[in-house]
Amino acid sequence: MTLVLPRGWTEDPAVLDARRLDRSGVDPGGRPRAVVIAESVDDVVDTLRHAHAERIPVVTRGAGTGLSGGATAGDGTIVLDLSRLDRIREISVADQVAVVEAGVITADLDRAAGEHGLRYAPDPASVAISTIGGNIATNAGGLRCAKYGVTRDSVLGLEVVLADGRIVRTGRRTVKGVAGYDLTSLFVGSEGTLGVIVAATLRLRPAPDEVATAALYLPDVDTAAAAAAALTAARIQPAVLELLDGACLSAIDPRGPGGAFLLVQTDGAGAAIEMARAHEILAGFGEVRVAADPAEAERLLAVRRGALPALERRGRVLIEDVAVPRSRMAEAVTAISGISARSGIEIATMAHAGDGNLHPILVLPHGRELDDEVWAAAGEVFTTALRLGGTLTGEHGVGTLKRRWLADELGPDVLELHHRVRSAFDPHAILNPGKALP
Amino acid sequence: MTLVLPRGWTEDPAVLDARRLDRSGVDPGGRPRAVVIAESVDDVVDTLRHAHAERIPVVTRGAGTGLSGGATAGDGTIVLDLSRLDRIREISVADQVAVVEAGVITADLDRAAGEHGLRYAPDPASVAISTIGGNIATNAGGLRCAKYGVTRDSVLGLEVVLADGRIVRTGRRTVKGVAGYDLTSLFVGSEGTLGVIVAATLRLRPAPDEVATAALYLPDVDTAAAAAAALTAARIQPAVLELLDGACLSAIDPRGPGGAFLLVQTDGAGAAIEMARAHEILAGFGEVRVAADPAEAERLLAVRRGALPALERRGRVLIEDVAVPRSRMAEAVTAISGISARSGIEIATMAHAGDGNLHPILVLPHGRELDDEVWAAAGEVFTTALRLGGTLTGEHGVGTLKRRWLADELGPDVLELHHRVRSAFDPHAILNPGKALP
Ligand SMILES: Cc1cc2nc3c(=O)[nH]c(=O)nc-3n(C[C@H](O)[C@H](O)[C@H](O)COP(=O)(O)OP(=O)(O)OC[C@H]3O[C@@H](n4cnc5c(N)ncnc54)[C@H](O)[C@@H]3O)c2cc1C
Ligand SMILES: Cc1cc2nc3c(=O)[nH]c(=O)nc-3n(C[C@H](O)[C@H](O)[C@H](O)COP(=O)(O)OP(=O)(O)OC[C@H]3O[C@@H](n4cnc5c(N)ncnc54)[C@H](O)[C@@H]3O)c2cc1C
Repeated sequence: MTLVLPRGWTEDPAVLDARRLDRSGVDPGGRPRAVVIAESVDDVVDTLRHAHAERIPVVTRGAGTGLSGGATAGDGTIVLDLSRLDRIREISVADQVAVVEAGVITADLDRAAGEHGLRYAPDPASVAISTIGGNIATNAGGLRCAKYGVTRDSVLGLEVVLADGRIVRTGRRTVKGVAGYDLTSLFVGSEGTLGVIVAATLRLRPAPDEVATAALYLPDVDTAAAAAAALTAARIQPAVLELLDGACLSAIDPRGPGGAFLLVQTDGAGAAIEMARAHEILAGFGEVRVAADPAEAERLLAVRRGALPALERRGRVLIEDVAVPRSRMAEAVTAISGISARSGIEIATMAHAGDGNLHPILVLPHGRELDDEVWAAAGEVFTTALRLGGTLTGEHGVGTLKRRWLADELGPDVLELHHRVRSAFDPHAILNPGKALP
Repeated sequence: MTLVLPRGWTEDPAVLDARRLDRSGVDPGGRPRAVVIAESVDDVVDTLRHAHAERIPVVTRGAGTGLSGGATAGDGTIVLDLSRLDRIREISVADQVAVVEAGVITADLDRAAGEHGLRYAPDPASVAISTIGGNIATNAGGLRCAKYGVTRDSVLGLEVVLADGRIVRTGRRTVKGVAGYDLTSLFVGSEGTLGVIVAATLRLRPAPDEVATAALYLPDVDTAAAAAAALTAARIQPAVLELLDGACLSAIDPRGPGGAFLLVQTDGAGAAIEMARAHEILAGFGEVRVAADPAEAERLLAVRRGALPALERRGRVLIEDVAVPRSRMAEAVTAISGISARSGIEIATMAHAGDGNLHPILVLPHGRELDDEVWAAAGEVFTTALRLGGTLTGEHGVGTLKRRWLADELGPDVLELHHRVRSAFDPHAILNPGKALP
């Protein structure tokens, strides 16, 4: 059999080099053999048929904004770039469903849904630059998932090209359904190792008419965590609950209030009522500022948004991502401060406090490499999360970065099941080999 | 190797006969070889080791309330009864998490959570008699899943005994996490074919302080579906949205109002506000009765609850369970009425209208068997659901009942993946063989 090269195939070094890395800072070494810029599902099919026949590793790439080294492409790989599969095929207001191609930028979908008073709930901070396919492949989270769940909770069905080029459809367009195994959820978060997602049927939700926003500065992270826990204990369900530690705050403003910062949003018909209850509780911890208007809400949100850029101005950042049970959050932040003190590496932590998802940001002086000491500190962060009953990664994925710790979380039997499942989908292991699994 | 029989093993015919069937009306023929009434996870391990070594099929059984022939046990099988694994190991208020054994009765968990102002959201109509393990193995739905999702949306992690007797843990205690494939979701809805679930870490949610209930009678199902669609279009998110057709209503009361019945609940801090909006919209369709107090709400709910018992008084019922995109609901009910008229078999339909999940109830005169004509009518119902872009089963599972239609929904390639996944977990196919897959 002679194989024609798929349409969109290029070996132009500039194109290859522009698609070697993601945003994790991991360098896989070498250079991919080719890039295929797919313009259609057929191009994906042809690429996989070719790669399958020739046993060439394929790295699927959305926008390359990943933070775990999932889309990095080393020597001899084919990068399958889906960014031009960017058609919104349908938005159904009656079914509150969207059908989109994998390369659609997350914010574009949300905007299109917004024209109908709906929204796509998952909102990673990268919405403006990441793709739906990448979000699904990493099961991306975001600020609103405290109330609305992660990407998985919005995926109803998928169109996937399997390793051998066959196109399959999983899931459905209905909200409920239990015919067959939940292969949809299996593809969600599989980081390009089980199949190439080319399109998805997604759940949209009503955009809330009312949103209330408040924030407060607190003396320290323990107090902030206690305030967050008090909201949980009062059975309040914030749409957003974000925490910044003192290191984040002093990066934003060295002469600022320091301590810790908590941002709360409630939404929906009961937004004002819930916020009034939240206010009452939070007032016991510090001076609460409830936004009087959208402009003030924006200013409060800007504090949270400004943290990462502020840290990036100080040095090279390694953005980590662990999750712990909510009740262990304060403990986790304290332990991370200890790791920072012992290692001498600056670590600032911001957290999706509503779900115990912490982003400890290791800040390295400009010029410093990701050396062994840095990895040792990161490793201590992961071990801490596991010790507290948590996980290595709340929303960024395992990629190449966390492979060596994965067995500690899953254990040998579950890991064996993973490899069996992987083989069931991709017997020759051509899909993103060396990623997501050790 | 000589194998000791597991503790709890019995071959007492009365015990065997009491565990041959579920509530589907399917008779597998023959009689199981043994029943093991497990009192501990160790008993489950021993049973599976034994069955694995001897290649004996194992039918895991919760409470046997299933409606699809999932827990039916034919000749030569071992029934593994988990109903005595009924310990609630932990309820954590701070983490809003429960850890329970598989045999816990759903309502018992909800009650225990309620003592802390929390609740276990999934509420199949069988809550008082079904087990958490059975709910997970069928991904059970219920009334509240319009707003709170199905069982899968409340399962964070599982403790599973694999076919060969190894114990594994999947998922986690944290709300978020993406380390490894989502094996938890794969076990959810797998109807005892991938592993035996012995315990689960479940998400609890705040029990709402406010609930508002309303109902209205409408001239026909089309109008009721239009009213439900108008709520969706107005971006209202009811916690419960139930529809009864005229056949249900006349079973309840032959001299009653007939037509169709719609029941709406909103809950949470904005319950009253959302209900006021809903009222305004529904008033355009008929005379809305908003419950003034809990007693009146109970009376309105009683109409919905009374439908199945009323139908059961008229004859033997075959309870079906299909789902369609919400926008096709009226069409589905009309098509089902047509099937009823053509076949001469009475079919009454009740629906979880919030998510397009229909329960067409075939009512057979007392004494009539589930003959070919009955199955032909049921088959037409399934085909209709598929034609409308829906699914064979919204929440009851495939069991033995729907195996022959499953390939029509999944297609050959996806079905092949199912068999590969099954083999990855259970190479000798001892776990509930002949169920869930064709
Ligand atoms: C500034 C910034 C903020 C961020 N904030 C968040 C956040 O709040 N929450 C969060 O979860 N993440 C966040 N991220 C990480 C990143 O944006 C997400 O992981 C995102 O989902 C990746 O999307 P992508 O299209 O860039 O995927 P890529 O980086 O291109 O790929 C990610 C992984 O998915 C695979 N993949 C991509 N597309 C497909 C497909 N169609 N089929 C199969 N596999 C595929 C790749 O092989 C790779 O393994 C942030 C990143 C940045 C740079
Ligand atoms: C009156 C009535 C109302 C109902 N209402 C609803 C409803 O509203 N929504 C709904 O979804 N269902 C409903 N059902 C169906 C049924 O109650 C559910 O399917 C329930 O989840 C079954 O639980 P069970 O413990 O009885 O499971 P069983 O019937 O014992 O088993 C069901 C399936 O799960 C498997 N299984 C059971 N336990 C385990 C385990 N621990 N590990 C692995 N596999 C296991 C069995 O092998 C079988 O395949 C109703 C049933 C009745 C009789």
